Amino acid sequence: VPSRAEAEARDEVDPLRAVREEFVIEAAGPIYLDGNSLGRLPRKTVDELQTAVEEGWGKGLVRSWSRWVDLPATLGDLIGAEIVGAAAGQIVVADSTTINLYKAAAAALAARPDRSAVLTDAGNFPTDRYVLEGLCRERNRELRFLTPDPVDGVQAAEVEAATAGGDVALVLLSHVDYRSAALGDLAGITATAHRAGALVVWDLSHSAGAVPVDLDASGADLAVGCTYKYLNGGPGAPAFVYVRAEHQVSLSQPVWGWFGQRDQFDMGPRYDPVRGIGSWLSGTPPVLGLVAAAAGVAGVAAVGVGALRARSVALTDLIVELADDWLAPLGAAVASPRVGARRGGHVAIRHPEAWRVCQALIDRYDVIPDFRPPDVVRLGPSPMYTRFAEVWDALDRIREALASGAWMAYPEARRRVT
Amino acid sequence: VPSRAEAEARDEVDPLRAVREEFVIEAAGPIYLDGNSLGRLPRKTVDELQTAVEEGWGKGLVRSWSRWVDLPATLGDLIGAEIVGAAAGQIVVADSTTINLYKAAAAALAARPDRSAVLTDAGNFPTDRYVLEGLCRERNRELRFLTPDPVDGVQAAEVEAATAGGDVALVLLSHVDYRSAALGDLAGITATAHRAGALVVWDLSHSAGAVPVDLDASGADLAVGCTYKYLNGGPGAPAFVYVRAEHQVSLSQPVWGWFGQRDQFDMGPRYDPVRGIGSWLSGTPPVLGLVAAAAGVAGVAAVGVGALRARSVALTDLIVELADDWLAPLGAAVASPRVGARRGGHVAIRHPEAWRVCQALIDRYDVIPDFRPPDVVRLGPSPMYTRFAEVWDALDRIREALASGAWMAYPEARRRVT
Repeated sequence: VPSRAEAEARDEVDPLRAVREEFVIEAAGPIYLDGNSLGRLPRKTVDELQTAVEEGWGKGLVRSWSRWVDLPATLGDLIGAEIVGAAAGQIVVADSTTINLYKAAAAALAARPDRSAVLTDAGNFPTDRYVLEGLCRERNRELRFLTPDPVDGVQAAEVEAATAGGDVALVLLSHVDYRSAALGDLAGITATAHRAGALVVWDLSHSAGAVPVDLDASGADLAVGCTYKYLNGGPGAPAFVYVRAEHQVSLSQPVWGWFGQRDQFDMGPRYDPVRGIGSWLSGTPPVLGLVAAAAGVAGVAAVGVGALRARSVALTDLIVELADDWLAPLGAAVASPRVGARRGGHVAIRHPEAWRVCQALIDRYDVIPDFRPPDVVRLGPSPMYTRFAEVWDALDRIREALASGAWMAYPEARRRVT
Repeated sequence: VPSRAEAEARDEVDPLRAVREEFVIEAAGPIYLDGNSLGRLPRKTVDELQTAVEEGWGKGLVRSWSRWVDLPATLGDLIGAEIVGAAAGQIVVADSTTINLYKAAAAALAARPDRSAVLTDAGNFPTDRYVLEGLCRERNRELRFLTPDPVDGVQAAEVEAATAGGDVALVLLSHVDYRSAALGDLAGITATAHRAGALVVWDLSHSAGAVPVDLDASGADLAVGCTYKYLNGGPGAPAFVYVRAEHQVSLSQPVWGWFGQRDQFDMGPRYDPVRGIGSWLSGTPPVLGLVAAAAGVAGVAAVGVGALRARSVALTDLIVELADDWLAPLGAAVASPRVGARRGGHVAIRHPEAWRVCQALIDRYDVIPDFRPPDVVRLGPSPMYTRFAEVWDALDRIREALASGAWMAYPEARRRVT
């Protein structure tokens, strides 16, 4: 395996090494491997938020809405052009990922009234599953779960088998699995589902900004994604929703609101939505969140997802290499695809005491990973700011935490939120 | 009518005069009478946002979620205790007003499956009407409109008549009318609707922070409200939703998501919502918006809605008095209730060329009112920061704008948003 000096040397010749300087990073801070849960703060965001607050809100007051009103669509177009491969006029940014999943799934179900089933992955991110569970109960559909290989994720053949009966209205999957990082076959699975007459909603939360996505070329019907992970949009930043142009007349989202209304400030008696993606807006969009999201997205767009993907694969390849050599003998196994091309931007390390190991890493080793139940230590380097030497140090510290048994000092039970 | 010197004298003896200093106000800025559309920026908000961004996000990174996760409920409890009269555990803050209206109305409809109709006010705020229109179409209910007197608003007797058939599932009304400022009888209308077996959702967007509200005592089933008007929460700040404690077991909101899940980070296979108001959360809450909203609400809470209401009535009384004397002879009539106790925090001035008058006021007279179609110049003084002398000056300038015919220089057509 490479030495630390070799990892440092990679950082020195890295063409993207200066990008890290765009972020607020404490010199004495932890090694942060959870940028796929909450991306770091871009320096530019601090300034842009301050301007939006002090100039836009403080001085411009309600007059600033003449600019703010366009934010959901202009940011959506930027995400389309630079991040997920969508021509203009197909994406807006507002509401949470969960709300957008609900809108997308509800619209798809309404367009397939005679089909009784919805298909997702039993290992899909919780909120995706819960949204579908609620919708299926409300609309009297059957929610069916694929149970793919936990490392390799959902394959087109599994979707083909599960939709063969012709009764599936909607297939909703994550492009990158939040645990294993398995990268789904966007175009292949979409085509498979389409052959069975189903609509497809893709959750791009763990892809956007880390993995190239070409929504238009993939044939995807709808997609939803998060801006606070690899796009560094800030805690609880608004999500985006994509609706393929050709579906924008036939698909109607369920939450009719004044920001989707044509001639909004005429305040007309009946809902008369704008033509196009604008009808996917509902209420007043969250301006501060949009400003921060826009700054984060602009930073990623300036670097380019292609270059970031190459760097991301190199970072995760290094994790896999070090984990195989150092951690496997200590009972921790890589639980992500080994081939970079089949993997998203993070790596899952499986260990039976993953929760306690994560606590030890945060508390004693100054490494911030993420725990994902039941047994995964998730390591998410960001190609925008994580250095190869940091990855090396993090894996070295994980090795030490495992070898020393330091994790045994931490309690077994996870904190209960409720 | 009072002279300007008398208005100034009122400011000088005003017990709340120092509250204005808590806000960012440009010395040379306009007279702002649209704080009921977007409240001004509190100074404290600038600092609290900066801390949340630089310390919470920038340094704390994902670890800050251990604090942020409680924001929707702690802010909800503060709004309950200080603003709308609700005991703890009945309000959360997240999502837009529109999304919360959708959740509340959908939950009410699900609880009254055998009732065919929904009742609202034809003059209700557009998004309230559009949400209901969408839900009624989706769930095959009839949307019925009250057409109350445009100045006095909906009366209990009208609700009684419209619900007499026993087929109304839900009555959704605004407590303060967004145009006329007519103040609804919260308890009386709720009791009337209850006698007919309907559930009641109140929209408190134009009440919260300006008018005392006692949700618990009123018997209201659900309520929704905005934080970016009198609560000064910032553009697109998240909204609040109230669900009476006794309904929290029987009413289920439709957007099931991971922030409503019990033991959220166990990421369990099935949706198992927390008991209580927490189940009304869906996706990841908007932290920056919540921080700003919390600062705004705290400022209002520190002054107290009782004192603010007294000042608000005095400010709007002055508008009515001056408008009657100065504007009525020029063709502009007060279109709000004349008795302060029947009026919310703003005043509607009706003029056939209201749109052009508003443009002239903003462009030439440095007064920011709000236009509301078809013919209303809406004047919304904020009891937190609007001075009596400002009201006097604004009305004086409106008089000048009307008397001079300056508004005739402005185009007739409103800008089309789409």
